[in-house]
Amino acid sequence: MSKIMDGKGIRVGVLGATGTVGQRFITLLANHPFFIIHALGASARSAGKPYSKAANWKQTTPIPSIVRDIIVHECKPEHFENCTVVFSGLDAEVAGDIESAFRAADLAVFSNAKNYRRDPSVPLVVPLVNASHLSMIPQQQALHQPPLKRGFVLTNANCSTTGLVIPLHALEKSFGPIESCIVTTMQAISGGGYPGVPSLDIIDNVVPYIGGEEEKMEWEVLKILGGITQGDDGLKTFDMHARNPLRVSASCNRVPVIDGHMMTVSVRFARRPPPSPQHVREALVAFTPEAQSIGCPSAPVHAIFVHEDPDRPQPRLDRYYQDGAGVSVGRVRQCPVLDIKFVVLANNVSIGAATSSIINAELAISKGFVKAPSVQ
Amino acid sequence: MSKIMDGKGIRVGVLGATGTVGQRFITLLANHPFFIIHALGASARSAGKPYSKAANWKQTTPIPSIVRDIIVHECKPEHFENCTVVFSGLDAEVAGDIESAFRAADLAVFSNAKNYRRDPSVPLVVPLVNASHLSMIPQQQALHQPPLKRGFVLTNANCSTTGLVIPLHALEKSFGPIESCIVTTMQAISGGGYPGVPSLDIIDNVVPYIGGEEEKMEWEVLKILGGITQGDDGLKTFDMHARNPLRVSASCNRVPVIDGHMMTVSVRFARRPPPSPQHVREALVAFTPEAQSIGCPSAPVHAIFVHEDPDRPQPRLDRYYQDGAGVSVGRVRQCPVLDIKFVVLANNVSIGAATSSIINAELAISKGFVKAPSVQ
Amino acid sequence: MSKIMDGKGIRVGVLGATGTVGQRFITLLANHPFFIIHALGASARSAGKPYSKAANWKQTTPIPSIVRDIIVHECKPEHFENCTVVFSGLDAEVAGDIESAFRAADLAVFSNAKNYRRDPSVPLVVPLVNASHLSMIPQQQALHQPPLKRGFVLTNANCSTTGLVIPLHALEKSFGPIESCIVTTMQAISGGGYPGVPSLDIIDNVVPYIGGEEEKMEWEVLKILGGITQGDDGLKTFDMHARNPLRVSASCNRVPVIDGHMMTVSVRFARRPPPSPQHVREALVAFTPEAQSIGCPSAPVHAIFVHEDPDRPQPRLDRYYQDGAGVSVGRVRQCPVLDIKFVVLANNVSIGAATSSIINAELAISKGFVKAPSVQ
Amino acid sequence: MSKIMDGKGIRVGVLGATGTVGQRFITLLANHPFFIIHALGASARSAGKPYSKAANWKQTTPIPSIVRDIIVHECKPEHFENCTVVFSGLDAEVAGDIESAFRAADLAVFSNAKNYRRDPSVPLVVPLVNASHLSMIPQQQALHQPPLKRGFVLTNANCSTTGLVIPLHALEKSFGPIESCIVTTMQAISGGGYPGVPSLDIIDNVVPYIGGEEEKMEWEVLKILGGITQGDDGLKTFDMHARNPLRVSASCNRVPVIDGHMMTVSVRFARRPPPSPQHVREALVAFTPEAQSIGCPSAPVHAIFVHEDPDRPQPRLDRYYQDGAGVSVGRVRQCPVLDIKFVVLANNVSIGAATSSIINAELAISKGFVKAPSVQ
Repeated sequence: MSKIMDGKGIRVGVLGATGTVGQRFITLLANHPFFIIHALGASARSAGKPYSKAANWKQTTPIPSIVRDIIVHECKPEHFENCTVVFSGLDAEVAGDIESAFRAADLAVFSNAKNYRRDPSVPLVVPLVNASHLSMIPQQQALHQPPLKRGFVLTNANCSTTGLVIPLHALEKSFGPIESCIVTTMQAISGGGYPGVPSLDIIDNVVPYIGGEEEKMEWEVLKILGGITQGDDGLKTFDMHARNPLRVSASCNRVPVIDGHMMTVSVRFARRPPPSPQHVREALVAFTPEAQSIGCPSAPVHAIFVHEDPDRPQPRLDRYYQDGAGVSVGRVRQCPVLDIKFVVLANNVSIGAATSSIINAELAISKGFVKAPSVQ
Repeated sequence: MSKIMDGKGIRVGVLGATGTVGQRFITLLANHPFFIIHALGASARSAGKPYSKAANWKQTTPIPSIVRDIIVHECKPEHFENCTVVFSGLDAEVAGDIESAFRAADLAVFSNAKNYRRDPSVPLVVPLVNASHLSMIPQQQALHQPPLKRGFVLTNANCSTTGLVIPLHALEKSFGPIESCIVTTMQAISGGGYPGVPSLDIIDNVVPYIGGEEEKMEWEVLKILGGITQGDDGLKTFDMHARNPLRVSASCNRVPVIDGHMMTVSVRFARRPPPSPQHVREALVAFTPEAQSIGCPSAPVHAIFVHEDPDRPQPRLDRYYQDGAGVSVGRVRQCPVLDIKFVVLANNVSIGAATSSIINAELAISKGFVKAPSVQ
Repeated sequence: MSKIMDGKGIRVGVLGATGTVGQRFITLLANHPFFIIHALGASARSAGKPYSKAANWKQTTPIPSIVRDIIVHECKPEHFENCTVVFSGLDAEVAGDIESAFRAADLAVFSNAKNYRRDPSVPLVVPLVNASHLSMIPQQQALHQPPLKRGFVLTNANCSTTGLVIPLHALEKSFGPIESCIVTTMQAISGGGYPGVPSLDIIDNVVPYIGGEEEKMEWEVLKILGGITQGDDGLKTFDMHARNPLRVSASCNRVPVIDGHMMTVSVRFARRPPPSPQHVREALVAFTPEAQSIGCPSAPVHAIFVHEDPDRPQPRLDRYYQDGAGVSVGRVRQCPVLDIKFVVLANNVSIGAATSSIINAELAISKGFVKAPSVQ
Repeated sequence: MSKIMDGKGIRVGVLGATGTVGQRFITLLANHPFFIIHALGASARSAGKPYSKAANWKQTTPIPSIVRDIIVHECKPEHFENCTVVFSGLDAEVAGDIESAFRAADLAVFSNAKNYRRDPSVPLVVPLVNASHLSMIPQQQALHQPPLKRGFVLTNANCSTTGLVIPLHALEKSFGPIESCIVTTMQAISGGGYPGVPSLDIIDNVVPYIGGEEEKMEWEVLKILGGITQGDDGLKTFDMHARNPLRVSASCNRVPVIDGHMMTVSVRFARRPPPSPQHVREALVAFTPEAQSIGCPSAPVHAIFVHEDPDRPQPRLDRYYQDGAGVSVGRVRQCPVLDIKFVVLANNVSIGAATSSIINAELAISKGFVKAPSVQ
C-alpha cells in the first residue's frame, strides 16, 4: 500500500458530497487511518462555496473540521486529478455521465449509484462477499476506448441487497448453493435520501412498495453471489449464479424507522438434507470475509452477529453493531415451506452504502488495482 | 331471527368490557341494528362502578351515552342470564375459566380469546371464510356434561390469521387447494392491547418477534381453511386441511403503526398451471362470503378490495375500508419462487377482533344456533 | 338563502383541488347539505384530466364518487363563472394572482391562503370568532376598480392562529380584554402540506421552527380579536385590538403528529382580579358563537369542549371532536407568571383550514353578502 | 484526589443497576477514567444473578464486558461497604428507605431519585450550576443521628429542571436575577423509564401532562438557582432565590421522541433595560461552569452550544452534543411579553440524569467531601 501513499496518506475525492450519502462518506473518511479528503464535488449550485455553507448537514455528529472550509467544486474530473480514489455518492440522475467522465479521465471511481451495476464489465461488489470480482477491473480497463491505465468504475450494491447477500454468502460457503430465497424487507426511511419519504406517507404507516427495489434485489443477488467465467476468447463474464440457478423473490416495504433495514428471509438449499438451524448459526458466526483477513481497516471485526434472544435484532438497538459495518442475524429456525428462515438487520447508511464503498477501495488498494495518479 | 328478539332487539353482554377489545365491542354494538347492550363484565376492581368511571376510555369516538351509566359487574354468569349473546374480550389469563363457566350456564359465548381455539369441538370461525364450521355447535352442546341447550363457545381467530385466511379462502374457492404459503407480517401496536408495547421498544424500531404469534398463524390457518369430516361413529372432526396438506411459514413483526396489520404473502397452488396474477385479482374482487349473501348487517359490502396502485394498501389510508370489516389486497404479481405473491392489509381491531365476533353472532342467529334464554 | 339557490343547491368551485387542502374541501363539500361541487381548478398539469386521475388522493376516506369524473380546469375565472362560491385551497405562491383575478371577475372567493390576510379591506375571519368582520365586504367591493357587485375575497386564518383565538375570544367575551398571551405550539405535520415535512426531519424529533408561523400568529390574533372602527370619512378599518393593546408571544414547533395542533397558552387579563380557573372553564363551556346560533350547518354543535381529565386533550384521541370543527381545551389552571394557563387542541385540517372557509361561506350567505351569478 | 484512590481508581457501586438509569450509569462508568464499578444492587429478583442475566439490556451499545459477570446484590449497605461512592438509579418507590440506610451506613450516595430533593439539608445539585451547594454536606453529616463521617445523600435534579437551569444560571451570572420564567417542555419518552409510556399513548400523539413534573420544575429551579444563607444559629439554609423572588410557570408535555427534552423558554429579568438577544447569545457561549474549570472529566468541554440556524436545536440531531453532557440553545430572540425567549435542548438520559450524578461525584471528590471507606 505504501507505493500509492504520499507522506500523509491517500488522497480521495467525494462526488455528491453535500447529499445524504456524501455526508456519510465524509463522516467516515474524516476518521479514516489513511484516506485524506482532498476534493469535494457537488452541483453547480454548491460550487465555489466552502463545504460548511454548501451542505445542509444532517448527521448526528458535527461537520468534521477538516472539511468545513474545503471549497466545493463541480463534479468535473479536472478538479479531482490529484485524487487516487474518488467516491461517488451521486444520485442516479447524474451519476451515469459523471462517473463515466471520471473513468475516462483515468480516475478510480467507487460508486454508490445504481447506474453501472448491470454493466457486464463493472464489478458489483459487497466487500464482505465477492471481493474476488475485483479481478474484472483489468478487463474493464482494457476494453475501454481508449484503454485505461488507472481508471475504472466499481459499484457497491443496493442497501437491501447488501444485507441479504452477506448471510447468504456465508451459508453458501458452508452448505453449498442456495436454490431459492423469499425475502420481505422492512426498510428505513434514510434509504430514500433527503428529503426523500414525506412524513405524511410514513408516520403510523407502512408503504408496501419501493420503486425498482425488488427488481434490484432479485437481480443483484445473482451477480454478487455468482462467479466469473472465462470464455474461449479469454473474456471474463459474470455468470449470474448460472451453474446453480437461484430464484429470489423480494417484497420490499418502507417502515417508519430512521436507519437500519430489517428483512425476513427463507431459503432452500440445493443439497439435501439441508443444514439444521444450529449448523446455520454456527456457520454464520464463523464467517470471516476476505476483507477482514486482509486487514481492511473499515471492515468489521465480526461480520455477522448471531442473536440468541428471540426478539433481536432490532434496528434501534442493533444498527450500530461494529459501527454499522457488521450485519445482525436472529431467529434462525426451520421454515415449514423452504428449509431455514431467519431475520437480518443491516445498517443501510453504513455497510449498505458508504462503508461498503470505502472497504471496496481498501480492498482494491490492497490487491493492487489502484494506482496513484502521476500528477500527484 | 324474530323468534329470539324481544320487542327491542337481542340482549347482549360484554365480558372484559373495560379493556381494549371490550371498548371496541361497545363502540360497534352501540350502533348495531338489533343487538342491545344489556350487561357489562369486568374485573372485581371495576365491579359496581358505572362504565364511564370503570373504563379508561381510549377510543377516538366518545363513550356511547347508552353505556355510560351501566353498572359494571364481575364476570359471573348470574349477571348475564338475561343475555342471548355474550361477547368476550377477556384476556387469555382469565378467559378460559370464565368462558367455560358461562357456557356451563347455558350462555352462547362469542370469544376473541385464544383459549378454546384449539378445542376439537369449538369452531374457530373467521366469518367471511368458514361460516360452515358453525355446524359443530350441536356436537359441542351434546358432548358437554351435562348436555347444553343453548350454551356454547365459538371463537374468532387471531388478528393476523384473520387477514391471511380471507384472501387464501377466496383463492381456494376459485383455484383449488393452496399447497404452501410464506407470510411475513408487519403488525400494529394495538394488537398488543393496552398498555401493551412500550413506546421505547417500538418508536424508530421494528421488533421481529411476537410471542406465540407465528405458531398461531401456522396452526389456525389449517383449522379455518380445512373442512369437517364425520367419522363412522357419527362424530365430526375438523380435518385441518388434511386432504390437501398445506404448509404455512409465518414471520411476525411489530412495527410502529397504530392500527392495521400488513402482510406480504407468497402462495403455491396444488393445481398446475397456477392462475395468473390477473385471474387472482378477479377472483379476489369477485369473492362474496356467505355472511354477506345471508345479509349479516356487520359484514362488509365488499369483502376484499383489490388495489391497482402499486403502493397500496397502506395501514393509515386503507384500514378504515368498510369500517374495518373488509380486507385490502394489493400488488398481486408472480412470485419467482412460489406462484403468486401479494400484500394484505386487515384492520386488526375490527375484522381482526370485535367485528369478527359480532358477525359470527349474526351468522349463528341467522342459522338458528342461538336461542333466547327462557328467563328473558 | 333560498334566493341564491337554484333547485338543487348552491354551486361551488374549488381552486387547488388536487392539493391537500383541496382534497379536504372536496371531502367536506361532497357531504354538504346545500353546496354542490360544480367546478374544480388546479395547475395546467392537471387540467383536462378527470379528478380521479389528476389527484394523488391521500384522504382516509375514498374519493367521493361525485367528483371522480369532473374534468379539472386551470384556475381561470371563465371556468367558474357559474359558481356562486369559490373555495381556494391554493398555495401562497399562486394564490395572490389567481384570487385577485377571480375577485375581479366578480366571484366570491373564500380563501385558505395567507396572501390577503393582511389586506386592510379583506376580512380575516375565524368563523367561531369574528363573523362581524364580514361587514367589511361592501367596502372591499366599493373600493375595487371597477367596483364589484358580487366579487370579494375573504380569508380564514392560519391553522395555529385559529386554535388560539377561539378560546381567547370566548374569554374576552366573559372577562374583558386580554393583555398578554404567551403560546407554545406543537403542530402536526399535515400543516405543512404534501409532500411537506420530510420524514427524516420529524420522526423521533421536534423542529422548533416553522417559517413565518410565529409572525402570523402574533399579528393575526390582533386583527381577528380586534374590532372595526369607522373614520370621519366613513371608511372602516380593522383596529388591531388597539383600544386594549394585546401582546402575543408565540413559539412554534413541529412534532411527529399527523393531524391536530396542540398549544400551551398563558394569558393575562386587563381586569383585576382575573377570573379563577373555574370561571374560565365555565366561560369556555358556555361559549356559543354566532355561526352556531345562526344555524350554519358546518358549525360545531359545541364550539369548545373542556376536559377535566388532566392528560387531555390529546391529538390522536380528541382531534375528531365535532368532526374536527370544535376545539378542545384542558388543564385550565393558574399561571404563576401571568393569570391563567391551559392547553388547546384544534384540528388543523378541519377548523384550522377547510372547515373554517366553508362556515365562512355559510355565514356570508346567511348574512346576505353572497349573490348568485346572473349567468347561472 | 489521590488520597482516596487505591492503586486502580475509586470503587463505586450502582443501585438500581438493572433499570434504565442504572444501565446508563454503567455505560458511562465503564469508560470512566478513575471510577471502577465494584458492586451492583437491584431488587431481590435480580440478586444472585450475573449482571448480564439480571438486566434486560436496552442500550444501543453492548453491555460493557467488565460488568457482565458481576453478581448483582440486593440493595443493602453491607454489599457496598468497600465502595467510596454509591450512585443510585433507584425508583422513587424504594429510593427513600434504601438511600437513607446507605447514608446511615456512612456511604456517600449520589442519587437520581426525587425523594430527598426537598430535604433542607440535602443539596440538589445540577453540576454545571450550583456546585457551591456541596458546602451543605458537612451540616447534613453533623445533624444526622448519629453524626456521620463519610455518609451523605446528594441528589441531582429532575431531567427537565436540569435543562432549564443551566441557561438560566448562565443568564443570571451575566445579567442579574431573573424575575419570571414561562417554560413549555416537549419531553422524550425515555424520561418515563421502562416500560414507561405505552406506545398507544404516544405514537402520533402529544400528552400534555406528566404527573408531578410541573411542580418539580417550578420548585426545583428555586432551590438550585437560589443561594445558601447562614442563620444566627450558624445553621445554613437554602434560600430558594428569596432575595429576588422568581416565579416559574411550567407546562410539561410528552412527545414521541426517544431521547432529548426540548423546551421553549421566556424570561423576564429584574434589571432594566434587559439584555439584547445578542448579549444573551454571547453570555451563553461564554458560560464556563466550575465543574469545567476544576477539570471534572465528565463535564462538557463547552457547557452551552448556541445555534444560529433558526431550526435548531433538534433532539435527533443535537442530543449527542458533548456526549449528552452539554446543553443546546437556539432561537434566542425578543419575547413580546417578557424580555427574551429561546429554545433549549438537554439530553435527559445524560446531563438530565446519570451524567449529572457522575459529575456531582467528581465535584465532591475534588472538593474533598468524599472520603475513602476505612475497610477498603
